Amino acid sequence: MMTTPDVDTSENVLFGRSRKLDDTADELHALCRQLYPICRSITGPGVRETLEILSSHIPLEIHEVPTGSQIFDWTVPEEWCCKDAFIEDLDGNRLVDFNVNCLHVMGYSTAIDTQLERDQLEPHLHSLPDQPELVPYRTSYYEKNWGFCLSEQQRNSLGEGPFRVKIDSSHTAGSLTYGELLIEGKTKQEILISTHICHPSLANDNLSGISVATYLGRLLADSRTKLHYSVRIVFIPATVGAITWLARNRDLYDNIVGGLVLSGVGDSGPLTYKRSRRGDGVIDHTLPSEMSRLDVEHELRDYSPYGYDERQFCSLGPNLPVGCLMRTPFGEYPEYHTSGDNLDFISGEQLCETLFVVAAAVEYSQYVRTYINLEPNGEPQLGRRGLYAAIGGDNDQKTSQMALLWMLSFSDGKTSTHDIHARSGLPIVDLCAAADRLEDAELLSAVAAP
Amino acid sequence: MMTTPDVDTSENVLFGRSRKLDDTADELHALCRQLYPICRSITGPGVRETLEILSSHIPLEIHEVPTGSQIFDWTVPEEWCCKDAFIEDLDGNRLVDFNVNCLHVMGYSTAIDTQLERDQLEPHLHSLPDQPELVPYRTSYYEKNWGFCLSEQQRNSLGEGPFRVKIDSSHTAGSLTYGELLIEGKTKQEILISTHICHPSLANDNLSGISVATYLGRLLADSRTKLHYSVRIVFIPATVGAITWLARNRDLYDNIVGGLVLSGVGDSGPLTYKRSRRGDGVIDHTLPSEMSRLDVEHELRDYSPYGYDERQFCSLGPNLPVGCLMRTPFGEYPEYHTSGDNLDFISGEQLCETLFVVAAAVEYSQYVRTYINLEPNGEPQLGRRGLYAAIGGDNDQKTSQMALLWMLSFSDGKTSTHDIHARSGLPIVDLCAAADRLEDAELLSAVAAP
Amino acid sequence: MMTTPDVDTSENVLFGRSRKLDDTADELHALCRQLYPICRSITGPGVRETLEILSSHIPLEIHEVPTGSQIFDWTVPEEWCCKDAFIEDLDGNRLVDFNVNCLHVMGYSTAIDTQLERDQLEPHLHSLPDQPELVPYRTSYYEKNWGFCLSEQQRNSLGEGPFRVKIDSSHTAGSLTYGELLIEGKTKQEILISTHICHPSLANDNLSGISVATYLGRLLADSRTKLHYSVRIVFIPATVGAITWLARNRDLYDNIVGGLVLSGVGDSGPLTYKRSRRGDGVIDHTLPSEMSRLDVEHELRDYSPYGYDERQFCSLGPNLPVGCLMRTPFGEYPEYHTSGDNLDFISGEQLCETLFVVAAAVEYSQYVRTYINLEPNGEPQLGRRGLYAAIGGDNDQKTSQMALLWMLSFSDGKTSTHDIHARSGLPIVDLCAAADRLEDAELLSAVAAP
Repeated sequence: MMTTPDVDTSENVLFGRSRKLDDTADELHALCRQLYPICRSITGPGVRETLEILSSHIPLEIHEVPTGSQIFDWTVPEEWCCKDAFIEDLDGNRLVDFNVNCLHVMGYSTAIDTQLERDQLEPHLHSLPDQPELVPYRTSYYEKNWGFCLSEQQRNSLGEGPFRVKIDSSHTAGSLTYGELLIEGKTKQEILISTHICHPSLANDNLSGISVATYLGRLLADSRTKLHYSVRIVFIPATVGAITWLARNRDLYDNIVGGLVLSGVGDSGPLTYKRSRRGDGVIDHTLPSEMSRLDVEHELRDYSPYGYDERQFCSLGPNLPVGCLMRTPFGEYPEYHTSGDNLDFISGEQLCETLFVVAAAVEYSQYVRTYINLEPNGEPQLGRRGLYAAIGGDNDQKTSQMALLWMLSFSDGKTSTHDIHARSGLPIVDLCAAADRLEDAELLSAVAAP
Repeated sequence: MMTTPDVDTSENVLFGRSRKLDDTADELHALCRQLYPICRSITGPGVRETLEILSSHIPLEIHEVPTGSQIFDWTVPEEWCCKDAFIEDLDGNRLVDFNVNCLHVMGYSTAIDTQLERDQLEPHLHSLPDQPELVPYRTSYYEKNWGFCLSEQQRNSLGEGPFRVKIDSSHTAGSLTYGELLIEGKTKQEILISTHICHPSLANDNLSGISVATYLGRLLADSRTKLHYSVRIVFIPATVGAITWLARNRDLYDNIVGGLVLSGVGDSGPLTYKRSRRGDGVIDHTLPSEMSRLDVEHELRDYSPYGYDERQFCSLGPNLPVGCLMRTPFGEYPEYHTSGDNLDFISGEQLCETLFVVAAAVEYSQYVRTYINLEPNGEPQLGRRGLYAAIGGDNDQKTSQMALLWMLSFSDGKTSTHDIHARSGLPIVDLCAAADRLEDAELLSAVAAP
Repeated sequence: MMTTPDVDTSENVLFGRSRKLDDTADELHALCRQLYPICRSITGPGVRETLEILSSHIPLEIHEVPTGSQIFDWTVPEEWCCKDAFIEDLDGNRLVDFNVNCLHVMGYSTAIDTQLERDQLEPHLHSLPDQPELVPYRTSYYEKNWGFCLSEQQRNSLGEGPFRVKIDSSHTAGSLTYGELLIEGKTKQEILISTHICHPSLANDNLSGISVATYLGRLLADSRTKLHYSVRIVFIPATVGAITWLARNRDLYDNIVGGLVLSGVGDSGPLTYKRSRRGDGVIDHTLPSEMSRLDVEHELRDYSPYGYDERQFCSLGPNLPVGCLMRTPFGEYPEYHTSGDNLDFISGEQLCETLFVVAAAVEYSQYVRTYINLEPNGEPQLGRRGLYAAIGGDNDQKTSQMALLWMLSFSDGKTSTHDIHARSGLPIVDLCAAADRLEDAELLSAVAAP
């Protein structure tokens, strides 16, 4: 792991140096601890309570989309509220208790209150024979069902029953809730950051993503420098939430120059960046290059259609350039979707390193711009505009002067400052500075594409 | 060589396992033996007799195209019939005799019946000084001429003459003959297999191709599974026959998704696949990958404009994606176009291996298809269509479920199941099965391009 | 260095063998010696005197473009004429004297005639502390100023003054002068060779380019074989001259199939070819391949927007495929833009090798042509046109016959003889010969693009 004191922040001018990161590590983990006990699902009070807590950190706009709304191929589901759930013996001893860990109830379970024999209960029990101490995380969103999740050990010691089984839950018309933070830049083009908020007491998946996204929003909102590209951070239920957002924001598709889903970013593994399907978003370029520059251990993967909400953002219709940042990829650690994914499974230092890397990539992305040369016939006369040394013959190829020539020579409306940086070796900030001077001189004009 | 018992047929579901291949080896060679003595040329009775024999194996449609027909830049030539040809001494001893080997007469020779001195005969003799025991194969299709081919040894012992020289041949208005077998698939798109039938007593060039093509036709016609793509097998005279076929079938060009010329596929050398000029036909993809999968020794070559009828199919006008499968490439073995290319030069085992590889490639090609996603905005809700597990959270990425996601995610109307297979690593049969389910659910639609 | 006697000229049929190159080496250096003392600038008598000398070698057309003409973003500057310039002590001893070396006056200096103290003179002195024996080359074209260049040693020994300082120069309305030689080929498509003529007593930069371009013009003009592509050689002042030429010749842009800026080609370093920005001109292909074929040591570089007039030719508007040939690249040798770049710094042998390589590339470029097949449906019947051997079956793949097939097979209007050469391995001259025969037979037609 990159240790915080060694972080090279010298090139991060917007927000990378705005806070002491050691403190941030503690704060990131503290936010996870605060959110951990809440029983979240794709809809309902758990999501709202979570967004309310985040609103104390960042000015979130909360959206409520009514149950039954048609969102592409889907329909916004009912709200689920679970007040209590348990399996008791007939003496009233709670054998499995939702209040101990909300994973014990299968997500979106229908209500039940009855007495059952062991063999009647059995089809509704979920455990992990290979991981006998862990409680699995299970849901049944799109088929009416109920169930309890418990460790294999618990299951083996339940006894023969009969049991009193109660789930005090309701499914009611309400809404799907999500939160959104827009930090406006100079252009309407934007970077989309998304993180899912529908999982209950699972720390890495995805309190880690929620806390990093929240603190990224704080850093950006606190920055005194106006961004070039807007940054939009959305806190949404997985799948149906992402599809809801996509269905309601079709007018934004063309503005999105890059994006990132943040999920499972607090465990001890190295960072894993999964490229967008298109693979050509600004984050596809800048996150890998920033991880390399900062010497942060990481792995790159091509897009595949299994994973988090990049599945939705990258689907063929919207086809947005949104990748996914994880540490150990989902499903590749044994604690995944079990009670083993708890607060000890993540650390503030790892969350903080993720935050730093994402902030650096978002910042670097601000400099990825594309221009068109307005005076393309030969070189324009820079001298009379005060942009070129008056006395010629000197062999000193100053970076600032070279940056002017490179920007003029390659600004064809398609080649970005990132491409020119890669070809010329000149720092992107110098190329952007040159572009600003050339724009002032009306020799370059920015184009919409990044 | 791949020994037949080790052949992995497990993935070949259409016809790869429909027959015992050991028997086929014998049958393939037997067919060559039956065809060997016939005096074939680009037109005439030898071709008809050959096609008649093939018709006892497969339901060939015979086409006759009248002499004089304009076929692009060419004209269908006259029929050539040669009943006898010899050089005798004046005692009536046959020194060179067409009845011993039909190679002895230069193909398409004009008739002659006269007495000649040695020096008058000399310009009409063809032999190979560097291969003194072999009779060369020579033709003069497009310039009226006559000649005899003989071994250098024979030539040296001919004596001074005078000789009686007779060629009992005729050139008459008739037709060019070719055979065609169409095994219809579910679509009108098709795979074109072509093999030339104009060579006289040469075993590898091209009784080998004829016998493999015939037995491929039998396998396909016998298959109880309906093909996806139609397969058309044409038995044609080289060059002028291929051009005739092209001129008469312009409406088929757009349907041809891949193809293969079979020539010289019975010698002891490893297989050589020469790509089509375009290089993007289904056979261009599947033949190399099937040879690798089956661990059959082979070489790949880029297209060049010298060779067999792929020259015609790949010419700039039709520009069909038709490659060529050989063993030792033409001209690269000393027996090429000589009497050394006889029945001992080829083996049933080599013919059988070729057949197996071609059948595998044709079969695999059936699975190379392209679809377009009809519900491309986010993932469609698979659960309510019974295509997705009802209970979520489980980490089991079943192949069938993954195949659904990959097909949905990449079916943009241009990316084929072969491409998705290469990218995902999922078996192409599973991807096609997923495509079938998604088509039934009206989530995918097949597009014409493979 | 390639020694002249070893030069393989066997494939150079136009002009490579037309002269003894040893003599040329002496002549090339002699021309540099003749031009060395002249005080050239971007305008004025030095340029005219230089072009007049060149006119004794080649039939140059001289162009005069009036001061004040608008040329894209620039304006043609006034003529500068400098008759004398010196710094004297008050006893009339010349301490710094323009007549000794015209580098001593800053190019384009305004007139002055006054007496100055040392501290008043100091801001107008230019020397090189790190190269104390060399006089730097400085100009001030676009800001009115005056100055003297001298060695650091001279500067240190100047004394305290006062000094008499005189520059007898004038800036007057006149014209910008450039020379042009067009050797007409069979087509209006052309190769553009450019060399700058604005530098005063600097041998490598750019008397070397001027002398090589002049002798290239002689070779081409003397050739008895008519060129396929025209060759245009322009002798122009750097930057403003190139921009002037571009502004006046917009109708030629589409005709230019390749080009080359010749600069700094006489020093002892290996040749350096800097590709055009597009990288797809004929010279981009043929100069590297000819340097390799001739086994001449060289380096290839991608385009960058700093250098010589390729900056103007490759600017986004004209976007011409014009590269740059140098030996040691500008700025990478310590003598660059100093009095160290004198006649001893270059050699006739190096100039001659450059000439030979450029001539070879220009000649090879004549063979880079593109055709379209007029009979693309199958192979045309070559036999009845006398283009194919009458007797078939022979395995002899003659180059001339193969060249016919390759040209027919790949002439799609986009693939050049150079591409076909690269793919087939056949010599380009044989491919062109085949193309000529096929054009005569109305089977191929040349297209405009090279």
